[in-house]
Amino acid sequence: MTTQQLVKQILKKKSFLCIGLDVDLNKIPQHLLKEEDPIFAFNKAIIDATHHLCVAYKPNTAFYEAYGLKGWKALEKTINYLNNNYPELFTIADAKRGDIGNTSSMYAKAFFEDLGFDSVTVAPYMGKDSVEPFLAFKNKHTILLALTSNVGAYDFQTKNIEGIELYKTVIETSKSYNNSENLMYVVGATKAEFLIEIRQMIPDSFLLVPGVGAQGGSLEDVCKYGITKNIGLLINSSRGIIYASNGENFASEASLKALELQTQMELILKQLL
Amino acid sequence: MTTQQLVKQILKKKSFLCIGLDVDLNKIPQHLLKEEDPIFAFNKAIIDATHHLCVAYKPNTAFYEAYGLKGWKALEKTINYLNNNYPELFTIADAKRGDIGNTSSMYAKAFFEDLGFDSVTVAPYMGKDSVEPFLAFKNKHTILLALTSNVGAYDFQTKNIEGIELYKTVIETSKSYNNSENLMYVVGATKAEFLIEIRQMIPDSFLLVPGVGAQGGSLEDVCKYGITKNIGLLINSSRGIIYASNGENFASEASLKALELQTQMELILKQLL
Repeated sequence: MTTQQLVKQILKKKSFLCIGLDVDLNKIPQHLLKEEDPIFAFNKAIIDATHHLCVAYKPNTAFYEAYGLKGWKALEKTINYLNNNYPELFTIADAKRGDIGNTSSMYAKAFFEDLGFDSVTVAPYMGKDSVEPFLAFKNKHTILLALTSNVGAYDFQTKNIEGIELYKTVIETSKSYNNSENLMYVVGATKAEFLIEIRQMIPDSFLLVPGVGAQGGSLEDVCKYGITKNIGLLINSSRGIIYASNGENFASEASLKALELQTQMELILKQLL
Repeated sequence: MTTQQLVKQILKKKSFLCIGLDVDLNKIPQHLLKEEDPIFAFNKAIIDATHHLCVAYKPNTAFYEAYGLKGWKALEKTINYLNNNYPELFTIADAKRGDIGNTSSMYAKAFFEDLGFDSVTVAPYMGKDSVEPFLAFKNKHTILLALTSNVGAYDFQTKNIEGIELYKTVIETSKSYNNSENLMYVVGATKAEFLIEIRQMIPDSFLLVPGVGAQGGSLEDVCKYGITKNIGLLINSSRGIIYASNGENFASEASLKALELQTQMELILKQLL
């Protein structure tokens, strides 16, 4: 998917919501456990109930790998279901991969070719040759970890590296990578005020923003400091939406939570455009 | 597996060799492609031919994920085969994972519980709360990326962060993590001279050292600067061993390459002990 197609979808749906599909069998409605594939059954119901309110879905691979082969199968079924039924939706494999060049190529192949995701999150610690193999794929997007939403972000990311914070060094350096136009960045909603300086460095790049909801980030603050003329934001909510209820009505309750966020986003877009 | 059991195995086998199982279907002997599961057939033959010469196996998950469901299945069969037939061998999931706390817990569950690996490699960029969930598992080991073997290591890892290089900050900080006795570290063989200062910080920790062979690192230099009284090194070779031949004799040729390295290690141990 091209960035233009993503922007078009945002303007049409009046939403820049991304829904995180982090499926934990201990948290989903217990009646689903009778299904042949409870993880996929859960995702399918959530997707069918919310696809008109969001522009992206983001399964975090950890939650699938934890269930081994059946988890990986559920991930494959979920991305296939999205690509076959809702091809306009942007898909993110939240995998936080990254390795030496020939190995990163294999990860890129896994997520872009084998599974067919539009994008994958990548960790920057191993530098340029660990990221560029992902960037080589046309109309696929590499979402680089810059400033994450967790407390541990202060351990290294915000530390000064030769006079400039590490996360800024990561962003600045990445702009010179081959095919850097395929880059997006992860910036946690819990650190909205950091967006002022981040936008000076990357005024147009799309940002994937986790941390609204369960982690305490504010949608208003993120938009105030991070929104661009092409919107440039994908705001992720996982637990706050998909676990709104664990009864039979889980999908419709999830849809109500998604509608709440979409309504706030529509208001923000109205003020902006 | 405990560290003591690993050391005991090293002394018994006179080897601290780790073999990387990075299986690429384009590189394995073509006659194996007729097998029902060529990846596992290749691994099984390599393991059977080399298990007495090495103390650890390290499948890199990228090479399995690239083949989707059948790749993950081959990974599962490989670790099961190792655990059932050669339980004395140390197993490493080279996965370079790391995410916010509750997500890292799922990755730990995936590799330690579901698959049953002894250890997993973890990227440090997201800080303490992304690493500690792995450390919570008793007799399991978390191998933190410190200084990697690739060129991109110079992009961030060797840069000064408030007066000290980032990779040293990572090592120093990690020593205060809960259950830090379960930590090992990745240090690339291509940067052997860095081991002098690394050993001042972590005199006893085990290091996983990739980059001998195809990437150009020297076994002698790594041992000169990195070996400890408990050896403290796992030297990895992947391509140099497993792709020694792509004919029918691939397993015996791999075994010869492993023997070469084991012989050098035996000599080094003899001088040391």
